[in-house]
Amino acid sequence: MSFQRVAIIGLGLIGGSVGLAVRDDLPGVTTSGYDIDPKVRARARQRGLAQVIHDDPGEAVRGADLVILCVPVGAMRDAAAAIAADLSPDCVVSDVGSSKRTITDTLTDALPGFEIIPAHPVAGTENSGPDAGFSTLFHQRWCIVTPPAGANKTKVAALVDFWESLGAMVECMDADHHDRVLAVTSHIPHLIAYTIVGTASDLEQVTRSEVIKYSAGGFRDFTRIASSDPTMWRDVFLNNKDAVLEMLDTFLTDLALMREAIKAGDGEMMFDTFSRTRAIRRSIVALGQDDARADFGRGDHD
Amino acid sequence: MSFQRVAIIGLGLIGGSVGLAVRDDLPGVTTSGYDIDPKVRARARQRGLAQVIHDDPGEAVRGADLVILCVPVGAMRDAAAAIAADLSPDCVVSDVGSSKRTITDTLTDALPGFEIIPAHPVAGTENSGPDAGFSTLFHQRWCIVTPPAGANKTKVAALVDFWESLGAMVECMDADHHDRVLAVTSHIPHLIAYTIVGTASDLEQVTRSEVIKYSAGGFRDFTRIASSDPTMWRDVFLNNKDAVLEMLDTFLTDLALMREAIKAGDGEMMFDTFSRTRAIRRSIVALGQDDARADFGRGDHD
Repeated sequence: MSFQRVAIIGLGLIGGSVGLAVRDDLPGVTTSGYDIDPKVRARARQRGLAQVIHDDPGEAVRGADLVILCVPVGAMRDAAAAIAADLSPDCVVSDVGSSKRTITDTLTDALPGFEIIPAHPVAGTENSGPDAGFSTLFHQRWCIVTPPAGANKTKVAALVDFWESLGAMVECMDADHHDRVLAVTSHIPHLIAYTIVGTASDLEQVTRSEVIKYSAGGFRDFTRIASSDPTMWRDVFLNNKDAVLEMLDTFLTDLALMREAIKAGDGEMMFDTFSRTRAIRRSIVALGQDDARADFGRGDHD
Repeated sequence: MSFQRVAIIGLGLIGGSVGLAVRDDLPGVTTSGYDIDPKVRARARQRGLAQVIHDDPGEAVRGADLVILCVPVGAMRDAAAAIAADLSPDCVVSDVGSSKRTITDTLTDALPGFEIIPAHPVAGTENSGPDAGFSTLFHQRWCIVTPPAGANKTKVAALVDFWESLGAMVECMDADHHDRVLAVTSHIPHLIAYTIVGTASDLEQVTRSEVIKYSAGGFRDFTRIASSDPTMWRDVFLNNKDAVLEMLDTFLTDLALMREAIKAGDGEMMFDTFSRTRAIRRSIVALGQDDARADFGRGDHD
């Protein structure tokens, strides 16, 4: 089986990119869309993020065989309630959220009897809203599918196929493991970036204008991540609390060791750590998960 | 006055870029170079990082009116000792190091009677060595000059002119303030990046291969910084200990507050912090200190 009618609820960066990717990569498949914000719907119509943009969530999902909730994690329950009465009995309900345990529980609870197969494309940019999406966002990126125990295997395979058609590489794992993996590869990096940018804005000894001027020393990299959507990220930390706290405490232990090394002038410990971390970068570039050019290729358009 | 004969000691990313920038932007000025590593000297000759590459540091500085030490902070004393006997009495000795108080003290001590005017171009990439430099590295980047009390004003102005000729914007400040500013805009970001990449490589719950695969969720940004030159960065932390510890403790206090907010499920506190940090990014992009394109323009060459 393969999905023929895809409904997209939420038309920001990810939802909009799904719509554009289906248009380009699955030409026979129809798309319908809905967003709770009328301004977003208007812009989505202009950009053609789905073939039809509905003003009512129920209308958007009627007849769809795949419904993808592309809303912040904290809005999942309301979004599910808004479509429950109009879902086709055989449809698959999926999502794109960054935490999977609480979403699985929320959707299973809100949509009893429906086939819930959560997923998470590990892709994005610092931009958000209906202007941010683009059709190649998922190319060469991983998408993690987290089928609950007892999920219909044919439908899981169809969802895997769907994401692969959009250019993604797919891996299946359970929701709890997903949440630990993403805590370290995504949530803690965002938390640290948001925190350090906040710290730097409020210093007494160094002005904000100095921080901005001299940001090319490294700080500016953090500001990109720290300009991501605040609602989405608040919801991630509210919904992946346990894994985030677990990984944060491991990081804090390592940072305390580094602090001691600086205090003690232990150059050997620092040199060892700083040397080991180069290998990880090389592997990421070798796997096509980052740009090999210096500075990510910044400024190459000049 | 303006410098006519520039000697560059150390031909890595920054030294090599200075040589190439002088070639392109100051065509009448001659350059001589030296590096302690014969392999680096051989490669520097092939790339033409200076007009003449000498096998002896004394020969490289003989007759120069500006000598720039482009070696790791920890190598400054030895580099100064190696050239002391051959310096012209009227020359200016400068450097490009990331910490300024200890370098000022070291050079003043090692080269009594010479005009020491330290400087720090806030520019670079994650690459190092004689292949890493390029002539436009300093374009639209800031260079901080830290003249000691009593420095010759004409010579300071000539050094400011020199960096402006290479495309940099120059600001003068005292060494201690520089060290605080760079602690927050550069040293702490590097320390955090090195630490989190180390943490992520050594987890029990998540494999290294998973960290690499799913790095597009944010982690990969940190790996770029964490692949910078280990010797250079060890020396930075050994030489800017006080300012780094001061800023690190401010960051740790803020991170502890964020940890409490996550633990308590305080969405409002998180949303407020995550919203404020967007403004800083906008200012950095507006000032031309970063690329406005999503993801720094990554992948735009595909």
